[in-house]
Amino acid sequence: MRIAIAGLGTVAGGLLALLRESAQNLAVRADCRLELIAVASRTRRDVDLGGAEFTHDVLSLAGRDDVDVIVELMGGEGLALELVERALTAGKSVVTANKAILATHGDRLFALAERHNVALGIEASVAGGIPIIAALTRSLVANSIDRVTGIINGTCNYILSAMSDQGAKFEDALARAQSLGYAEADPRFDVGGVDAAHKLAILTALAFGVPFNKAAVYAEGITAVTPDDITYARELGYCIKQLGISRRTAKGIEMRVHPALIPLDSMLASVSGVMNAVQINDQATGALLFYGPGAGGRATASSVLSDLVSFARGDSVIRRRQSGSAVPLLPIEAVESAAYLRIPVIDQPGVFARIATILSEHGISIEGAIQRERAIADHKVPIVVVTQPVPETAMNKAVAALQALPAVVGTVRRIRVEHAGG
Amino acid sequence: MRIAIAGLGTVAGGLLALLRESAQNLAVRADCRLELIAVASRTRRDVDLGGAEFTHDVLSLAGRDDVDVIVELMGGEGLALELVERALTAGKSVVTANKAILATHGDRLFALAERHNVALGIEASVAGGIPIIAALTRSLVANSIDRVTGIINGTCNYILSAMSDQGAKFEDALARAQSLGYAEADPRFDVGGVDAAHKLAILTALAFGVPFNKAAVYAEGITAVTPDDITYARELGYCIKQLGISRRTAKGIEMRVHPALIPLDSMLASVSGVMNAVQINDQATGALLFYGPGAGGRATASSVLSDLVSFARGDSVIRRRQSGSAVPLLPIEAVESAAYLRIPVIDQPGVFARIATILSEHGISIEGAIQRERAIADHKVPIVVVTQPVPETAMNKAVAALQALPAVVGTVRRIRVEHAGG
Repeated sequence: MRIAIAGLGTVAGGLLALLRESAQNLAVRADCRLELIAVASRTRRDVDLGGAEFTHDVLSLAGRDDVDVIVELMGGEGLALELVERALTAGKSVVTANKAILATHGDRLFALAERHNVALGIEASVAGGIPIIAALTRSLVANSIDRVTGIINGTCNYILSAMSDQGAKFEDALARAQSLGYAEADPRFDVGGVDAAHKLAILTALAFGVPFNKAAVYAEGITAVTPDDITYARELGYCIKQLGISRRTAKGIEMRVHPALIPLDSMLASVSGVMNAVQINDQATGALLFYGPGAGGRATASSVLSDLVSFARGDSVIRRRQSGSAVPLLPIEAVESAAYLRIPVIDQPGVFARIATILSEHGISIEGAIQRERAIADHKVPIVVVTQPVPETAMNKAVAALQALPAVVGTVRRIRVEHAGG
Repeated sequence: MRIAIAGLGTVAGGLLALLRESAQNLAVRADCRLELIAVASRTRRDVDLGGAEFTHDVLSLAGRDDVDVIVELMGGEGLALELVERALTAGKSVVTANKAILATHGDRLFALAERHNVALGIEASVAGGIPIIAALTRSLVANSIDRVTGIINGTCNYILSAMSDQGAKFEDALARAQSLGYAEADPRFDVGGVDAAHKLAILTALAFGVPFNKAAVYAEGITAVTPDDITYARELGYCIKQLGISRRTAKGIEMRVHPALIPLDSMLASVSGVMNAVQINDQATGALLFYGPGAGGRATASSVLSDLVSFARGDSVIRRRQSGSAVPLLPIEAVESAAYLRIPVIDQPGVFARIATILSEHGISIEGAIQRERAIADHKVPIVVVTQPVPETAMNKAVAALQALPAVVGTVRRIRVEHAGG
């Protein structure tokens, strides 16, 4: 099988290395041979191309008769999207790690691949080296999935792990992530939840047969999580992770990215640093979890390579199919979840009772609480409450009512609580 | 695709249920339809066969012209092996959950499948519902694997978890596992390491391209692990798990099943109760971990179903290939590993120094140690030592020398220590 690579960044570098190293494994264990014909990139980097032709003209790859598969590793939306469209239209199979174009144009691109009878491989688009796309589209394709819960942004997980393990502040942990090369110079894409929303849109489309629709993902970042929140959470038996969650309910499919308290003894709680993990809850297995590196050139290239091998072996091609009648994608207002509330109050008699009353009036039951000893200087103390699951709208109203209490002397902080099982 | 099932036990029951429930998912998401033609079992159980024919004549399935794939879920070696051989020879593809026949006859059965140009699906043979066979033979087939580390016997993991979490004794935890249906009435197959050895032989053959050879697996059970060992291990930062490990070294491939201390903060340490997990260390991703239910009718049936879907879609077939020149399977004497030693001594001056001297004379460095306070009644105290990695033979000699010390007043207990990374 003859391939061409567009892009010369970290993942392309990893792929070039793996293609060299894996040639023998491929020949012996998979009965296939991958031949690199050409590499295209707007900028030439000093990388060993193993004799392949180099061109600055990225789009020219789509027109080559001596190439069967185009590997798009440029990132970005404009040129990358154009290359993928042209390649598919020209009857070439495509492998892409580009979550941004898939999360928005996934349905159209899969339809284009089907129309031209070629394959579109997207293993590398979510969770780096973890073969989660194969799990969803092959191993578990017959299974009825209830929920996908992922730690799918390594930067957020690194920051929250550093805050949790070393008591670091958010800003310091972010600065360290940046100095280690985990976070972009503009970190909003990661810590604001955008990157995870792209990935969740892809996982959700594959797990539930709904459209690729990143615009329908509710995304909340981790910038407001404090070391205090992490400490209180631990006292209550939880840690805080940035999660991407999609869930099937009687009303439709939830898609949301936000920080969440999860039980300390859950598998997801053990995922630390830049590592990723995706948990699948389904009717046949109960819960499966897939853990590994969510980024990195060689790890992500491993996923690219797995798609290439699958094409070369002639495996069946992933086609997008809607699951029966259209299932609605739900807004965040339709979500029901438990919440952790940190309420800064003036410590005076009866405050806790008033808070409990307000929660009760909104139909919210308390599962656990922490009331700190009296603060000596300013009489300010936080009251921390974990609630039972409650509709989003009821919680919004309750938080507004709490915020209006005269004894509440700062912003009421709210973080969802998730018990994903497994 | 027309299928027949041999066996009517737990997994067959799970498969019958999943075939009913998944029909719509299969049609919509995987473009395929599975038709159950016949079920065979020596004993008839009252299970809904969905209109399929029933027969007591198991071997007759291999001769049916109206069946494309035989699913062997009987277990045992004699009749099951004969059915699989006959079916493959008759040009029918086979799915089997039978680890015992694969761990011994795997090479011959894969060769038979290849000769008759049919497929042999074995996803269900290891780790229940976890798609670990697909990971090794598809997603990671190009990757160069260094190590496979698995918690692949749920009974052992349940017992060690109960000993660790509730301070239970081995016998009590085993009795509870039996009453919950996790352990066989004769538990030696599980707690003695035989079941895990079968599974490890299969994982190793697929990960490293060596023959299926359960006889070459070193297997040690968990019956000698005590609550004290678990307590001391935790003080030193470890927990104790029953692991199956295969590892590539410069000399060949290690295959061993034994209890091991692993770091408390590792992902494998978080796998509790009857759950299973398999960690793959490879040159491209670093470490991946796959977690899920290692047994149970529906979970294991999920893996059977994934093989059936793969056949129905016409995916490439897994063929056995040796990786280049023959790689030796190493005996346990060729293994190098760190050890935890619990040495019961009479507490008298200089004992620790003599122990340290003996270890040093055998080239063994101490990484950590616990020396308990003096026992009041009988002056017996345990000295606990964790060593650096050392060749098995050196450790055997050191343990013999320690055992011969006059101050050592009981059996020196030794458990290997594994730092698998990830």
